[in-house]
Formats: sequence, structure tokens, C-alpha cells
Amino acid sequence: MVSKKMYELGTKKSTIRTIFEFGRKRAAEVGEENIYDFSLGNPNVPTPEFVKQAAIDILQTMPPEAVHGYTIAPGNPQVRETLARSINDRFGTHFAGKNLFMTAGAAAAITICFKALCEEGDEFIAFAPFFPEYRCFVESVGGKLVVVPARVEDFQIDFAAFEALLTPHTKAVIVNSPNNPSGAIYSEETIEELAAILRRKEAEYGHPIYIISDEPYREIAYEGNTVPYIPCYYRDTLVCYSYSKSFSLPGERIGYIVVPDELEGAAEVYGAIAGAARVLTHVNAPSLWQLVVARCAGKPSDISTYRKNGQLLYDGLIEAGFTCVKPQGAFYLFPKALEDDDYAFCERAKKYDLLLVPGTDFGCPGYFRAAYCIKTETIERSLPLFKKLAEEYRK
Amino acid sequence: MVSKKMYELGTKKSTIRTIFEFGRKRAAEVGEENIYDFSLGNPNVPTPEFVKQAAIDILQTMPPEAVHGYTIAPGNPQVRETLARSINDRFGTHFAGKNLFMTAGAAAAITICFKALCEEGDEFIAFAPFFPEYRCFVESVGGKLVVVPARVEDFQIDFAAFEALLTPHTKAVIVNSPNNPSGAIYSEETIEELAAILRRKEAEYGHPIYIISDEPYREIAYEGNTVPYIPCYYRDTLVCYSYSKSFSLPGERIGYIVVPDELEGAAEVYGAIAGAARVLTHVNAPSLWQLVVARCAGKPSDISTYRKNGQLLYDGLIEAGFTCVKPQGAFYLFPKALEDDDYAFCERAKKYDLLLVPGTDFGCPGYFRAAYCIKTETIERSLPLFKKLAEEYRK
Repeated sequence: MVSKKMYELGTKKSTIRTIFEFGRKRAAEVGEENIYDFSLGNPNVPTPEFVKQAAIDILQTMPPEAVHGYTIAPGNPQVRETLARSINDRFGTHFAGKNLFMTAGAAAAITICFKALCEEGDEFIAFAPFFPEYRCFVESVGGKLVVVPARVEDFQIDFAAFEALLTPHTKAVIVNSPNNPSGAIYSEETIEELAAILRRKEAEYGHPIYIISDEPYREIAYEGNTVPYIPCYYRDTLVCYSYSKSFSLPGERIGYIVVPDELEGAAEVYGAIAGAARVLTHVNAPSLWQLVVARCAGKPSDISTYRKNGQLLYDGLIEAGFTCVKPQGAFYLFPKALEDDDYAFCERAKKYDLLLVPGTDFGCPGYFRAAYCIKTETIERSLPLFKKLAEEYRK
Repeated sequence: MVSKKMYELGTKKSTIRTIFEFGRKRAAEVGEENIYDFSLGNPNVPTPEFVKQAAIDILQTMPPEAVHGYTIAPGNPQVRETLARSINDRFGTHFAGKNLFMTAGAAAAITICFKALCEEGDEFIAFAPFFPEYRCFVESVGGKLVVVPARVEDFQIDFAAFEALLTPHTKAVIVNSPNNPSGAIYSEETIEELAAILRRKEAEYGHPIYIISDEPYREIAYEGNTVPYIPCYYRDTLVCYSYSKSFSLPGERIGYIVVPDELEGAAEVYGAIAGAARVLTHVNAPSLWQLVVARCAGKPSDISTYRKNGQLLYDGLIEAGFTCVKPQGAFYLFPKALEDDDYAFCERAKKYDLLLVPGTDFGCPGYFRAAYCIKTETIERSLPLFKKLAEEYRK
């Protein structure tokens, strides 16, 4: 009667969602303040005032048909020019508006790329730990997701494992740095080595292997960490950007894809992106928000809360005896669970109303994710509980 | 290197787009005021002031995380409750918020339904003349579009032709009333007969046949014409609504699907809709606009300009000697071309800078579409040209 696959995709709850809903139920029983919900990656820093003022000003001063009318499918040409200039100022690139395709956030951007590129038998590589929706999105366009196991000592790339998984069917490699869930940022050396391997393999296979750089966390990078702009290192890179985290606008669905001129088959790729956006029924990215992000181009994200929270939780967990790679960006910690079975560990943590997500969900068993985009006070009050949990394991 | 199909879908220009672009070029040559562009269905009535004020008020008074945060995938629960109540007040239905699934406009709504419902070998029926994107959307989910030829005397339904095309593979029937491109509204008798046939065929085949009611033009209905609310006539109806035309918000992408409890397999269909929205990467419908349309629920659309334009163009064409079913709604006329070859006719009209779309594009050869959502003055000035064009054919 209905598509079984769609029914399953629409009704099988993710682990994250199940934990979150458990938290809501517990909160009703024991009080909101006694629940330490580290499950969701929902930005808790308010949308900047300048974003709000830009939206109000546009609504008050521009003719409504210029604000709310259809834009052409790739997006408002002036908006794309403005954003391209802003990217160029920042990274020394030479993009024009025609290199950008506005999208309804990063989920749409990456899936449009998958659908644009995917031919029969194509493989897309992700590095564990990775955002679980990658599997769903890649498989929905008929691709195969190939996972490179995590390099757990620093969550950079295990290049030997990576090379062994490259085949002539590899269409693209997904890079997500700063990373959800590890908080790691790929260093310049990592990107350079990745690029070198891919260039070698492109020559060997005689066809491009694209990097799809999924960058919703680009602006959330802490002191001493820069996030290399991958098109500066590797020609065949598609950048997928979102304002969901940088401007705390996740509900508005606004972002873009960059298709550099240098990219092999740039015109074909851009054309196929337009086709993919069309059949995924993204008629155009929401038009008011296109104008707003152009007005706010180059303005800073406020990451002070995330920085403070990350430091607090990291220090607390280390003190409690956890092992954890120090987060360089995003708003997640990805510590080692205190037993091999990360599901069992997260269940045990629930006794203390600490709601954590098993690493297995991100392709990295034996670890857990703690999203610290929550109230600082909740983190402070959770630390003694993490201590108690760790003590349990030492008994 | 890229998906050939996506490349074709993204680069092969539609006839409408080609005509529109020709118009832009001609306007640069001979002046905007000398081009009579009836090609695009872009609403030209400004967004109502109450919509603008609602958006500004929400931005100024609500906490940003409540405005811009992710909503759950089906949409903000309060918004859906409000919209359900508004629908109930208007049509005497008994929907609750849980019967609604907010979408990024009607294109997303109908395609989410197609994808949710489509199983191997499924057929979707459309009545000519029909919105050309139906084919692209149905085929993109793996379905087959079956077209019932037009009943050109009134653009109601040719039921004999319809019945002959129903098969056990028919999954759903697409209804678009008020219709793009004919401007016809299906009468109560038409809907009742359609429902009777479908009920009989459901019993014969032993499975549901859904109506997918694509309703972006619901509010644009002229005097003496009511648009029957199909769930009141036929149990297995999914309603796909959009605010693109009613509130002139096409760029913002906001609408919804109604899944009545009575619908056969309602829970399965709703679940599959959630799965389809997920893989089409509609994470949630734009969150500010969800709040805005809830605030404006039940407020009227301003159709006075469309009414005036439609009457003016209709009278002018009839006077010039054209044959045309009088439009009852939407903002299109669909007259008979003055020669059998509608492409040749539209080419000839171009000599007068009258830009019209051949009916063949809508599955109805020998006709043409004139979108009258343009300046009244442009229509006034076009009438002598339509006369000249008609005179040419009388020579």
C-alpha cells in the first residue's frame, strides 16, 4: 500500500531520538533540572541580533515580491555574488556567484551532491565516526556508503585503511571537519595527505574522485585551530555549507554548495546539481533567508558558550578518569566508554540521568557522544555524576 | 562522471523557461513595455500586509530559538493544531494537528506523497491539461504517469477515458482544481462521480486508490464557484496545500499535507510521508514561515487583481474571436490555438511580442496557456495585438 522502505525510514526511531524522548519522559517524572541530556546537537546559542535585525529590515523596506518571490533555482544572483565575494575575502579563492547553488541547509546540499554525482555502482566514502544520516542519504540515491574505521587516537584519518578502501567505483569522499561527533578538525597535513592520495588515485583510475566537504561546523573552531578550506588544497572539491549552526538558524534551512570552476566537469556537475535539486523538490532555498545571509556575510559567529562548555565538560571528564581527545571544534565530545559495549555503558549512565549516545551509531563502537550545546549549569551539575559513574567501573 | 539523468533534468530548459528568457532578451531590445509576457505563473499580487506584520512581530517578540530552532519533522505541533482547527472551521472536517505534515510548499508535498506511496510498477493518473512537473516528480520516484486526455469543452473529467485507464497498478489520482493551466474548477458533480468510480474500483481491486489533491490555487476561485473539499467526498484523499499563491509567498516554500484518520492505512501513509520527507532532505518546513501561516490562518487572500485581469483578458480574447472556457479560478486562460499546431501558433504570436505557452506542454495540444498574473495595463495593451493575430488567421 505504501513504500515499505519509506515507512521504515519514517518510523524507525534513531537511537538519538529514542534517548531524547526518554529524557523528556524522565524530565516529566523527576524535573527538568535533574536530567542531563547530552543527546541532541541543537544549537543553544541564540540567533545573533544582527541576523534578526537584517530580517526585520528586509521585511520592512524591500518590496514583498523581491523578498518572497521565487528565485531562480540556483538562488538569487546578487546573494550568490555577495557570498562568493565573502568567501574569496576569507580564503583567497576566486569564486563568482555562478559557482554557488543555494540550498535548504547542509542536509539538502550534501544529498543534492550525492544525487547529482551517483551513477550505478558508485561508492561514497565516509570516515568514522560520522553523522548517521550519511548512510540514509547515500543509499537513498542508490549509492553505497563505504566506511573507513576511526583513527581513535586523534580522530584524524587512518590513511592506510582509507587507501585500501578506494576503488574505481569511488565517486566521492565525504569530509566533515570540524567533526560531528568527535569535535576533531582535520589538520592541514591531513588535508594535504588526503589530497595527495586522491590525486594519485584520480590519475590511476582516470576519473575524478570528488571531496564533498560537509561544513556546518566550520565557524565553531576553538583557539589555535584553523579549518583548512579544502578547495585551496584539492581541485575536485564541492563545499556544502549551512547557516544552521553558525547563525543558529537550523529551522530555516539555508546553506549553499560551492562548485569551483577548476573542478573536473564543473559544468556537468553544476547542471546535475540543478537536476537533483529539482527532483528532490527544493524549488529554491527559502528566499527571505537568502537575502538575510547575504546581508550578514562575513559577520562572526558567537562561539563563546560552546568554548566554555567544551572546556568545562572536557576537564570534568578527564578529572573523572575518562579518556577523550580534546575537542578542537563543533559542540561534541567523543570520549571512550568505560566498557567495550557502548550501548551497555550508555544504559548504565542513564541511572544517573546522564543521557549519552553510543558511538556505534556513528560507526565507532566503544565510544560515546556528549553534545554540550546545552546550559552551562547543566554541565556543571552533571560532573559529580560522571565521577560517580566512573567510580562504579573502578569497583 | 555525473548522473546523466540529473544533468538532463537540470539543464534541459522547459518551454516555459525558454519563452520567458526570450522575453527578457526582447525586453532589452524593444523595451519592457512592449513585451506581453504571459509565460510565467508567478503571483503578482503583493504579499498581504498582515503576513508581513506577523513575520515582523514574531521576529521581534518571540525567543529566537523558538522561531529558528529545528521543529520536529512533521512541523511545529501548535502550528499544526491551529491550521487543523482553521481547516475544520471552514470545511466541517475533524482534523487534529497530527493529521498535518508541514512541507516546503506544494511541489514538496505532492512529491513526498508520490515517494511515500510508490511501489514497484505503480501508476499515477493525471488529467490533461496538467502541470508539466508532475511527470518529472512521478518518474523521479519510480512511478509511471498515466494521462487522461482533456475534456476540452469544459475541462472537467472525461470519465469514460478515465475509467479505461484505471488498472490494479493505479496507486493514486492527481487532482488539481482550480487548475493550472485551464482555470477550471471541478464541480461537486465531477468530484462525486470521480469518488464513485474510485470507490467501485477500490472494491474491485481490493486496495486503496488515493486522490492526491494538489491545491495551490484553492483560494483563487471567482464568484459563483466553490472548490469542493475532496476529503468530504472521498475517504482516501491526501490534501497538498501551499501558501505560494494564496499569500504570495512562493519563494519561502511553505505548505502542508493533510492525512485524514479515515484514509485507508493512514498510519502507514503518515509514516511513509515522514520517510519520504527525510530522504528528500526536507528536514523541516522553514520554521519562521510555519509560525507566520499559523498566525494568519483563515485570513483572506486578495484575488481582486486576478479577477479583474482574468475578466479583461477573457473578454478581449472572445471579442478577438478566440474560443476559451471561462476561467473559474487560478490565474490562467487556456484558449484554443488558431491552428492545430500550438507550437506554430505560439511562434506566430511572438511576432507581436505576445509570449504564450503551447498547450502540448500541458498534455493538451491545440491550446495555449496565458498566465494573467501580470500588470493589468499590460493586458489592456495586449488586446489589440491579439486581435491582429486573430485577423492574420482569417485572411
